[in-house]
Amino acid sequence: MTKLLIIGAGRSTGSLVDYLLQHSAELNLELTVADLDIKLAQEKVQGNNRAKAISLNIEDKEQRQEVIKNHDFIISMLPAFMHGNVAKDCLSFNKHMATASYVSAEMKMINKEAQQNGLLFLNECGLDPGIDHASAMKLIHEIEAKGGTITSFKSYCGGLVAPESNDNPWGYKFSWNPRNVVLAGQGTAQYLKEGKIKYLPYNKLFKQTDLIEIEGYGRFDAYANRDSLSYIDVYGLSHVKTMLRGTLRQEHYCKAYDIFIDLGLTDDSTRLFHTNKLTYTDLLLAFLPSTSNDLKTVLKNVFEKRFDNDIEKMFDYLELFNHKKITLSEGTPAQLLQNLLEEKWKLNETDKDMIVMQHLFEYELNNTTKKVTSSLVVKGVNNKTTAMSKTVGLPLAICVKNFLTKKYTAKGVVIPTVKEIYNPLLAELENYDITFHEKFD
Amino acid sequence: MTKLLIIGAGRSTGSLVDYLLQHSAELNLELTVADLDIKLAQEKVQGNNRAKAISLNIEDKEQRQEVIKNHDFIISMLPAFMHGNVAKDCLSFNKHMATASYVSAEMKMINKEAQQNGLLFLNECGLDPGIDHASAMKLIHEIEAKGGTITSFKSYCGGLVAPESNDNPWGYKFSWNPRNVVLAGQGTAQYLKEGKIKYLPYNKLFKQTDLIEIEGYGRFDAYANRDSLSYIDVYGLSHVKTMLRGTLRQEHYCKAYDIFIDLGLTDDSTRLFHTNKLTYTDLLLAFLPSTSNDLKTVLKNVFEKRFDNDIEKMFDYLELFNHKKITLSEGTPAQLLQNLLEEKWKLNETDKDMIVMQHLFEYELNNTTKKVTSSLVVKGVNNKTTAMSKTVGLPLAICVKNFLTKKYTAKGVVIPTVKEIYNPLLAELENYDITFHEKFD
Repeated sequence: MTKLLIIGAGRSTGSLVDYLLQHSAELNLELTVADLDIKLAQEKVQGNNRAKAISLNIEDKEQRQEVIKNHDFIISMLPAFMHGNVAKDCLSFNKHMATASYVSAEMKMINKEAQQNGLLFLNECGLDPGIDHASAMKLIHEIEAKGGTITSFKSYCGGLVAPESNDNPWGYKFSWNPRNVVLAGQGTAQYLKEGKIKYLPYNKLFKQTDLIEIEGYGRFDAYANRDSLSYIDVYGLSHVKTMLRGTLRQEHYCKAYDIFIDLGLTDDSTRLFHTNKLTYTDLLLAFLPSTSNDLKTVLKNVFEKRFDNDIEKMFDYLELFNHKKITLSEGTPAQLLQNLLEEKWKLNETDKDMIVMQHLFEYELNNTTKKVTSSLVVKGVNNKTTAMSKTVGLPLAICVKNFLTKKYTAKGVVIPTVKEIYNPLLAELENYDITFHEKFD
Repeated sequence: MTKLLIIGAGRSTGSLVDYLLQHSAELNLELTVADLDIKLAQEKVQGNNRAKAISLNIEDKEQRQEVIKNHDFIISMLPAFMHGNVAKDCLSFNKHMATASYVSAEMKMINKEAQQNGLLFLNECGLDPGIDHASAMKLIHEIEAKGGTITSFKSYCGGLVAPESNDNPWGYKFSWNPRNVVLAGQGTAQYLKEGKIKYLPYNKLFKQTDLIEIEGYGRFDAYANRDSLSYIDVYGLSHVKTMLRGTLRQEHYCKAYDIFIDLGLTDDSTRLFHTNKLTYTDLLLAFLPSTSNDLKTVLKNVFEKRFDNDIEKMFDYLELFNHKKITLSEGTPAQLLQNLLEEKWKLNETDKDMIVMQHLFEYELNNTTKKVTSSLVVKGVNNKTTAMSKTVGLPLAICVKNFLTKKYTAKGVVIPTVKEIYNPLLAELENYDITFHEKFD
């Protein structure tokens, strides 16, 4: 019997738990779902007799270690910055571990010891990172197997709202952590373009976007992810001249959000006070040099042609011209903005979210340049059974099952870029309608 | 006898220690100067028989508490974010404390307990904050005493280089923490302008500057400090319509530094790797959209008229067009920039630094609007005996002496805005040629 512990019962844990419960008899699993809020854990477990829900305060070292000690495999669905202590405990008590998060510097450091102890620390095994790695590596290995040399790799992913549930001009509703969406892109993006390293600061990130087309779903803006450079080595693309990983939003989203960035509304470092005496109209005006009270005119004067009809509609939808009251009494500009967006970009009960992913390859084969595009679209069912939860949770669940059934033997800190991991993963994902469509030029 | 402990023997501690040693017999002081680097502490103490130097690791709780326990009054010259533990210890062991730093949220919270225990926690008692508060409050109280109502208050301060030592087109050399200079202004500045709250984001801060004139010293750029709003209450300026505290740089500095900000060179959140394979010319090019290698032409194309002759000279001085190698193998853009600036903006042995401060008041008296300007210029002697060290260290030293000699009785978390503190402080500073020149219109 394997005792499996899942820490964190948030939005993305549903599909993970469902899959593992469906396979619990076959795998002889006993499942524990732990969360600070035991109700969230109970919801996920749904009274299944092979599973139990517990309350766990991850900051309580003694309690955390006691729980980890009593399990064989730990899946951490906590926010990325909280994996560190769990990983250290897993190492101390000889437990395997899996996450859907990026490999942190801290995680990287335990690779050697994990390998020596025969432990698996599987990371980046959700959607993005996760499915993107698996599907990209499959194509890379196929192209290389027929003698091709990859010269350009661009990969984009976005968690959006399905067209049939899209009733707002931003084309966006929250299917995961709103804070991450509001702060997305702060820092410096790094990528490779035509053989040159490019650094893109936050103030240019939403300006220098790509336009992507997905057949049947229209056009999307893409802005660069923080770090594309380190994936050149990870993917083994030693001849690549262009390497970019990016995030998708509906067309026009980026130029509108860029106005927020320019205004200063995404700053998360400075607290503003007495903000419940202000409206959102006042807030924007305070960030503008004019002393006029006519926000729309001021925006048109300051941003000129940049503030176009698309953006006017998007701002209108957020009631920015409408003297809507700010409810928070204090907060950073980013927190005040997030508070508004959580209301306006809410995924309602019957709304379907949508995951869109696209890889674009260029490669040299027999002295000609060839292209291939690989695209994925996944839709959710409603605001509980989301495409986001499915595409983040299933890869983790499948890879944990495949490890327990010895379909692969990788040890140490690994990500799903190796054949023995991605092949059975991608094959099984197709059973769940997570299927890439490849188009060779 | 009073046992006085000074923690931190950095740049600004020299004048503080010198003053206290000069008055040690009269005050019956025994002085301890503590630093992680005992050599720095020894330099300051210079074998004086009323003083000793010790090595202290502030992170070592046991050692820190042992040392604090054995003294009566603690002056923390540590970086601001390190005061917290010292303050808690001072509260636990019933010791008075003083710093030259802004009152943090943490410090604010101990006010009540400090008052109850009869302890002084004197803060913001250096130059800026410090001398600015004292000199501004003196004028405010004088204007109010004759029946005036202050409607506008602007106050500017800068630590610069004296004209006779100014041999670079930036007009700037480091007289204090270079990191703070490089990162200055990140976040959102808050001030009051003509009755309206204004928020200014970092990407606009060095664009929307004021131009200040100091008689005999020429013109200076001024950018807004992070927080001017909270000083409306602190200074008791209930009728003020304009309230701005700002930082001075030589004219043209801000428009040039703003190019760094726009490029993304001041981001401190993202590490770049293998940077010792790059030159500073490469680094700037990587932040620009063009694929050309001619940095100067690219800057002219991208920034158009903004990249003018002044800025070209300033960039030239930093060897940015000169393919100068980066020596750090990794670092954030801000760290790479700082590394270059520390070389180029070094205060050399015989260089004199210069402190410039100016307050500009407008007030209503007998139904007419009046103005008053109060200006201060202080020059250093060389790169050891700086105007910065003198103007940061002396106010602290004098206020500690005045407390020990019972010239004032304030308790709790206080700053030098009250008469009993600022009057004897300003009077004594004049003995050290720290004298404001007031000009009434």
